[in-house]
Amino acid sequence: MPRIVVDVMLKPEILDPQGKAIAGALPRLGFSSFEAVRQGKRFELTVEGEVTEQILTQAREAAATLLSNPVIEDVVNVEVVAD
Amino acid sequence: MPRIVVDVMLKPEILDPQGKAIAGALPRLGFSSFEAVRQGKRFELTVEGEVTEQILTQAREAAATLLSNPVIEDVVNVEVVAD
Repeated sequence: MPRIVVDVMLKPEILDPQGKAIAGALPRLGFSSFEAVRQGKRFELTVEGEVTEQILTQAREAAATLLSNPVIEDVVNVEVVAD
Repeated sequence: MPRIVVDVMLKPEILDPQGKAIAGALPRLGFSSFEAVRQGKRFELTVEGEVTEQILTQAREAAATLLSNPVIEDVVNVEVVAD
């Protein structure tokens, strides 16, 4: 069944303590190539049948209202993934 | 600066109560097109300069050891995103 993937990240100006903690842990574990880390969320919405333009519009609306908090987060990607 | 995006999802056999709660909320808000929802994590690792094969290998190792819990999660994607 096709899925719609929605990616949500904190807005760039919002502090991300979880990402900061990971950025601090990486060099301690020997991974020294990364300047910064930010953590966001990924949602997979399963659709039965075909992903129509109407369903995609619904997914974009759901992403903007339920899956993200528009005050502090950006929806950075909404895309269809077929299996 | 280029970023490496790492996507982590719970393994299919692991229950996802957060995704289930979202799947229940969607139709109540008028979004009736989705059969199921699963929530995962997305990480953005910022790299200074070019993303070499060595840095990408480091990102894959970090994804498998620090960014995911291999007992319950799968790393579903590691990719380079240029700005």
